[in-house]
Amino acid sequence: MAAFELDERLARDTVLATVTGLCQLRVMKDGRWPWVMLVPQRNGISEIFELTPLDQALLTFETNMVAAALKNVTGAKKINVAAIGNIVSQLHVHIVARFEGDPNWPGPIWGHGSAEPRGETEMQQFVETLTQAL
Amino acid sequence: MAAFELDERLARDTVLATVTGLCQLRVMKDGRWPWVMLVPQRNGISEIFELTPLDQALLTFETNMVAAALKNVTGAKKINVAAIGNIVSQLHVHIVARFEGDPNWPGPIWGHGSAEPRGETEMQQFVETLTQAL
Repeated sequence: MAAFELDERLARDTVLATVTGLCQLRVMKDGRWPWVMLVPQRNGISEIFELTPLDQALLTFETNMVAAALKNVTGAKKINVAAIGNIVSQLHVHIVARFEGDPNWPGPIWGHGSAEPRGETEMQQFVETLTQAL
Repeated sequence: MAAFELDERLARDTVLATVTGLCQLRVMKDGRWPWVMLVPQRNGISEIFELTPLDQALLTFETNMVAAALKNVTGAKKINVAAIGNIVSQLHVHIVARFEGDPNWPGPIWGHGSAEPRGETEMQQFVETLTQAL
């Protein structure tokens, strides 16, 4: 089986936090929202239904585990979960913590404004807090 | 167990196509995109991870079944799947067929412009075609 190849735009926009099993858990460098993504380590997949049934179950489990942890550590009002992929076709699932009054609330985060980089210390702390909560 | 109560805004914006098991499959009246949603028939749930593990597995199965059918009958370039719920907190999963050049492509559909109602005949045909493909 060929080694997993991460899309170069996903690699550029995120940092690896941990591997949850099937997926890489990656944190967006954009710091406007607590925003992570799960990327199943499978090549050539762009839709969730293209995964095997076992991989679909793993993705569900890992998505809900991360979503619950993200809600716990941030105290968010709502977690947004989405597989969109209109721009980057490699399957990736966004998991975002939303708060009343955050940028573009209650609208979606995708396509809104420009990224604002997270500071290095803040990123380290966020990764550490989130991975400990898993 | 109390009877399932559908949020009144979801009821107003959609029509019931069928029940897929756990969920009601509902079609958005907005006809700008082939756009449906799955609403688990459980009261008081706003996050996927609040469902029981069995319900989570059912929702995954039903989401992927509908997403695959929607892709088949529309020939879409990409299926967008999202649980957002910043406005209507009752858990509902959007499943949308996207095409290059459709309204707001490749951006998200949520929060974009104003709804354009689907004609009655077109709605009937869409519901029939989609439910036959399940």
